[in-house]
Amino acid sequence: MTMEIHVVQKVMKVNDEIAQAIRSRLEAARIPAVNLMSAPGSGKTSLIETAIRSLRDTVRIGVIEGDPDTTRDAERIAALGAPVVQINTAGGCHLEANLVNRALDDLDLDALDLLVIENVGNLVCPVEFDLGETRRAAIISIPEGHDKPAKYPKLFRTADVVILNKIDLLPYVDFDEPRFTGDVRGLNPDASLLRVSCRTGEGVLGWLDWLRAVVQPTAQVGR
Amino acid sequence: MTMEIHVVQKVMKVNDEIAQAIRSRLEAARIPAVNLMSAPGSGKTSLIETAIRSLRDTVRIGVIEGDPDTTRDAERIAALGAPVVQINTAGGCHLEANLVNRALDDLDLDALDLLVIENVGNLVCPVEFDLGETRRAAIISIPEGHDKPAKYPKLFRTADVVILNKIDLLPYVDFDEPRFTGDVRGLNPDASLLRVSCRTGEGVLGWLDWLRAVVQPTAQVGR
Repeated sequence: MTMEIHVVQKVMKVNDEIAQAIRSRLEAARIPAVNLMSAPGSGKTSLIETAIRSLRDTVRIGVIEGDPDTTRDAERIAALGAPVVQINTAGGCHLEANLVNRALDDLDLDALDLLVIENVGNLVCPVEFDLGETRRAAIISIPEGHDKPAKYPKLFRTADVVILNKIDLLPYVDFDEPRFTGDVRGLNPDASLLRVSCRTGEGVLGWLDWLRAVVQPTAQVGR
Repeated sequence: MTMEIHVVQKVMKVNDEIAQAIRSRLEAARIPAVNLMSAPGSGKTSLIETAIRSLRDTVRIGVIEGDPDTTRDAERIAALGAPVVQINTAGGCHLEANLVNRALDDLDLDALDLLVIENVGNLVCPVEFDLGETRRAAIISIPEGHDKPAKYPKLFRTADVVILNKIDLLPYVDFDEPRFTGDVRGLNPDASLLRVSCRTGEGVLGWLDWLRAVVQPTAQVGR
């Protein structure tokens, strides 16, 4: 048992060192990175697709896709003509910095303004692993229920933006939005809170503005 | 690295031994156990609530609730008067047999006909850990998307029943049900496939019949 804990601690220490190296590497290339975390099926890939389609003339987005088994999400991104690298975790439930660091070798950093990392769909383990990202995004979709911030507090506590996705489904499910918002604010008063539906387009401008502000923190954003 | 792999293998070996002990313990008490696995927010707790409410006069259900941080789901079950034990995984993303074995000490097995174990919401890691269950249930809800069997094949390959939940949301999302069903059948031709909405009640009888058949495999089920 002692050995097990020792190994886990070592894994985290190595991860954090590599994450720092990624951070330096991305800073040198002047590319901010966003780490998208959510449950499976919350709409991470759709949010990335929307961003690529809408920002392609102004922000060159590269994508790292984490998945336990397939390349389906990477294929969706590649279909839009954006540079994408697939990390297949071979059954692993989260991305780690060493995997991201190797994936970066396959991206032309000089040709990018922004890196988006789609983590493995999981609300628990991805939170523990620094990937050298500039910003963390927590995504929850309406059908998952308003209890998720209370049940997975660390994800929300460490997020820079919380995206409430699939808001077009609000009329059809029992989702207590004031309670959700209150729980998020209780855990993290400073996070941006966005309401989005990639299906209807509602709130998409807020998501795009948030991404633009990540790329150009000093520029005037909004329209 | 070698040490790490060695430790992981040891963890799995110990888990499987404890799972066998659980299996013997439950067989001695003549209690079948169902291990419910899904993403967060797919409706595991609602399916258990529905079963407790509908079967309370004929099947005495005990519940073990796995959650990384809160006791919210256990409170929902306790509110229905069913025996429930909460396992708090303290941030862990799956249940392991040793946790279930300890939880069993807190249940009066003589007063139960069926044990339902709600795993931590996660489509990856829970699949690897035998909990001594008699049956495995994989639950996917409509808003999560039809691509989940292809992306998380092991969950579907090892399931005895696949429950497509929240089917009341079919009109409002892009879910290709024939493709979903085809993918599930390709991975696992023998699993029962149920369509359920706990909200409208559609398909709930199928879920109850499936549970009755787990409790009394030789009895005539259906109505």
